[in-house]
Amino acid sequence: MRKEVELFDVIKETLDKLDGEGILLVAGDPPNPMTIGWGTIGHIWHKQIMTVLVRPVRHTFKLMESIQDFSVCVLPEQYRKQLSICGTKSGRDLNKVEACNFNMEPCIKVQSFYMEESVIHFECRIVHKHFLDPATLDPKTINRYYPQRDFHMVYYGEILGVYKK
Amino acid sequence: MRKEVELFDVIKETLDKLDGEGILLVAGDPPNPMTIGWGTIGHIWHKQIMTVLVRPVRHTFKLMESIQDFSVCVLPEQYRKQLSICGTKSGRDLNKVEACNFNMEPCIKVQSFYMEESVIHFECRIVHKHFLDPATLDPKTINRYYPQRDFHMVYYGEILGVYKK
Repeated sequence: MRKEVELFDVIKETLDKLDGEGILLVAGDPPNPMTIGWGTIGHIWHKQIMTVLVRPVRHTFKLMESIQDFSVCVLPEQYRKQLSICGTKSGRDLNKVEACNFNMEPCIKVQSFYMEESVIHFECRIVHKHFLDPATLDPKTINRYYPQRDFHMVYYGEILGVYKK
Repeated sequence: MRKEVELFDVIKETLDKLDGEGILLVAGDPPNPMTIGWGTIGHIWHKQIMTVLVRPVRHTFKLMESIQDFSVCVLPEQYRKQLSICGTKSGRDLNKVEACNFNMEPCIKVQSFYMEESVIHFECRIVHKHFLDPATLDPKTINRYYPQRDFHMVYYGEILGVYKK
């Protein structure tokens, strides 16, 4: 059984993982997890907000565009192999939930899923999105991360629930 | 003397204040502080990033557009009056630094200023910016926060230094 917790009490652990081995963005039904290392957490429009970035070439992009809800899941230490699979394989070619042997459960507040194996998960609904604008992106960043000019969509998710195992 | 600290060690305190009585966005030279309650912190492009939102009608907008650097300052508890002045008065009409009796110091890594009175301050350089797009902003949010349709510019600042008193 998961318990609901305060966002700011798990924010350090979440951002440490984001900046380290990665966390999982889960979108679609059936759900597809993708490892992410980039995102932000804060407070906008009197809502708790998590931003996540998805390139339009990703399978997850199609899933994010079809359902307005997603979850973000933090796995414990020993899941490096699964994070690697979810970061290098596409849901177009592989059922990543099966490949990782994840036990998926429906989210409590949004139309998405989380894996029982996660230690923290966030349930989010998209309230804003925009493509990164190359006209206002620092040129070094463009050259290094966007040689194909496949600029990320930034999704602003309202955090409707934060849960801990 | 200030000491440099790890971002994630001060993130909870900073976001608590952002979501509470507010924190100060300092832009321009001479510096002008504006109280903000909206923003996010995280990790994008392998940089530590803080996003802050500024409406184009604000004096701070002009300052942010003229210099690429800004600071974000967290004040201690007893500074509610100053936060109120910096949140309700415009730098066009009032020298807010004088009105609040702040002791400004030049930033260590960027071309901005922080006040000695702050307990934490962040030094940032703008690496991306975009106006909120009403086409992809949830309609309830538009009606509630943008009756004048003066949609915020979102500034993505690379955090180049985090300091504690």
